[in-house]
Amino acid sequence: MAILERSDNGPVARLTLNHPEKLNALSDAMLAALQDQFDRLAGDSAIRVVIIDGAGKAFCAGHDLKEMTAGRQAEDGGRAYFADLFTRCARVMTAIRALPQPVIAQPHGIATAAGCQLVASCDLAVAANGTRFGVNGVNIGLFCSTPMVALSRNIPRKQAFEMLTTGDFIDTDRAAALGLINRAVPHEDLAAETDALARQIASKLGTAVRIGKRAFYDQIEMGLDQAYAHTGAVMVENMMVEDTAEGISAFLEKRTPDWHQD
Amino acid sequence: MAILERSDNGPVARLTLNHPEKLNALSDAMLAALQDQFDRLAGDSAIRVVIIDGAGKAFCAGHDLKEMTAGRQAEDGGRAYFADLFTRCARVMTAIRALPQPVIAQPHGIATAAGCQLVASCDLAVAANGTRFGVNGVNIGLFCSTPMVALSRNIPRKQAFEMLTTGDFIDTDRAAALGLINRAVPHEDLAAETDALARQIASKLGTAVRIGKRAFYDQIEMGLDQAYAHTGAVMVENMMVEDTAEGISAFLEKRTPDWHQD
Amino acid sequence: MAILERSDNGPVARLTLNHPEKLNALSDAMLAALQDQFDRLAGDSAIRVVIIDGAGKAFCAGHDLKEMTAGRQAEDGGRAYFADLFTRCARVMTAIRALPQPVIAQPHGIATAAGCQLVASCDLAVAANGTRFGVNGVNIGLFCSTPMVALSRNIPRKQAFEMLTTGDFIDTDRAAALGLINRAVPHEDLAAETDALARQIASKLGTAVRIGKRAFYDQIEMGLDQAYAHTGAVMVENMMVEDTAEGISAFLEKRTPDWHQD
Repeated sequence: MAILERSDNGPVARLTLNHPEKLNALSDAMLAALQDQFDRLAGDSAIRVVIIDGAGKAFCAGHDLKEMTAGRQAEDGGRAYFADLFTRCARVMTAIRALPQPVIAQPHGIATAAGCQLVASCDLAVAANGTRFGVNGVNIGLFCSTPMVALSRNIPRKQAFEMLTTGDFIDTDRAAALGLINRAVPHEDLAAETDALARQIASKLGTAVRIGKRAFYDQIEMGLDQAYAHTGAVMVENMMVEDTAEGISAFLEKRTPDWHQD
Repeated sequence: MAILERSDNGPVARLTLNHPEKLNALSDAMLAALQDQFDRLAGDSAIRVVIIDGAGKAFCAGHDLKEMTAGRQAEDGGRAYFADLFTRCARVMTAIRALPQPVIAQPHGIATAAGCQLVASCDLAVAANGTRFGVNGVNIGLFCSTPMVALSRNIPRKQAFEMLTTGDFIDTDRAAALGLINRAVPHEDLAAETDALARQIASKLGTAVRIGKRAFYDQIEMGLDQAYAHTGAVMVENMMVEDTAEGISAFLEKRTPDWHQD
Repeated sequence: MAILERSDNGPVARLTLNHPEKLNALSDAMLAALQDQFDRLAGDSAIRVVIIDGAGKAFCAGHDLKEMTAGRQAEDGGRAYFADLFTRCARVMTAIRALPQPVIAQPHGIATAAGCQLVASCDLAVAANGTRFGVNGVNIGLFCSTPMVALSRNIPRKQAFEMLTTGDFIDTDRAAALGLINRAVPHEDLAAETDALARQIASKLGTAVRIGKRAFYDQIEMGLDQAYAHTGAVMVENMMVEDTAEGISAFLEKRTPDWHQD
């Protein structure tokens, strides 16, 4: 079994973090495998939605602390290795945003530190009831400074600050109320629910979803006027897509669109 | 009846989208009528609060798809028309923020696509119980890229992304919990509740509300230090207003202020 | 008794606004006392967490309106005094963010105008059940333009706008749901609960908390890519701290870390 399994089901690719004895830690190998899959998916127009789940009892417990500790053996005490590690990790996280496909996190068990960051970095998240989320690096003296980049763009400030400085877990009810996940479902329904959501999104016009996802993250960092100037131009491009013209005509004529999807 | 009705009640202007057979679509004529009213209101110091509601069974169903489709007949396939349309629509939406008066959306029935954007663009929103909100352009191949500018500045990211990519509606409980509306009330009380809120705000010192609304949106796009530098200067101007001096004196002397309101 | 009492309990400093007959207003003297304490705390590595509470029946009722009114006697009608006042107040509020220690607001009774701003400006807040929060300057003709800088960075826009333009109070349930406070507890447990939270955070590695708090506010104003570049470098520095190496080793060896904390 590979450290990262991929199974495609029609237009939906499922990536499974598969190193359960390490609680699917984001080791060098795992980060490389994720980056490799994201690079492939970026150019794969047959795949319309990506799901990320984890094998075993946890979704992901963050960085591989044993590997990081081993890195300290270098002459510089690990400085260069750590700088490279966090660069690679940030590249993986931002690759999710850059992917043309929506990415759904499917956490269960625990999602801690960089594992919680992975959930926060995905476009959507459906969790198993009972999943616990934490950015608890502070407990071992390593503040979750990179995970908080994603976390603080999902949930309100005081709630993020509390998680970061107490190291306390939050449960799925709180994660849903705060905005870290979209919803939680019973564990036995988890994969089916996530698949259903993925198929629903995959049934839309792929071009429109691709255009929209990119515009979503582009505009969110702009001031209001710039955001409208940008998305106005995006809407024009979307209107000029042939399948969109067909989609609108079909709607006006109350019939099913005959899309030729790329 | 005009496509956009205006009825003033003392310091409160009520604008009613009035094209029920088109579910109050934001057609060229409707956008022009809104812009015209906003231009008038911008200089009308007698009006202190604006309400926007819709006639018929829906608040607003977004752009006029039939009109947009007709636009494709142009030599350029509609490109210039669409660019102009989205520019005019953004101008209407940002005019709400630029108005000196607070603007309350009063949705009922459905508020979809640019209709949902209109709710998100208002300063406040009171909805009828049962109203459904959606940014469902994705269902016909046209991602709601301009509506999401307003939506993603009202509600958390993952929840906005879900609405945009699934096309699913949310109900009033969820809209209130996420921040898209301030609250929902029974339909039979809707106009009265919105009027009461409008009158409450209209009873405040108009100069202070005008100063505050402008500062609210100015500071929200700034970094913290710049925001304080800016609003500190705004507070000084507010303090130098004669009616504000009177308001503070009256408070200290436990009497009703004798305001000469402009 | 001083206008601002400080009592230290091990690594936790408690600052008590102590001018109950003025509802602990942020007078010139109170602002100066807060700034003085913050300046001392900034360099005090023995203190790891700061709590701010208020003596008497209210946490803080905002600026001292009597003092401000007296300021109008100056030749310029108070303009220079007000400009200086809001600059000093903003300096106090931003000093909280700049402090190396997490700061917990402990409001009870009422927290209004700049008093509500003080709660919003703290990193965390635990309130007594029944506390009422408001930015109600609009009621006397002085819009809460500086308080809204902090408020609108804690809670969603439409909810902030409603508080600012209606002057209405919100209760602790709503304050917690919106993100203005972390939670509310019975008044009789308030100090004990806040102390427990403070001690929990104080038990972490101080260096990590200091590094993390600074990075939290630095990255929150950046775009995503810049935020990752910045926090990646922060993580490297955190990894190079000797106590952090020990914290990670202790975790891997399932033992208590032997920290030499600065």
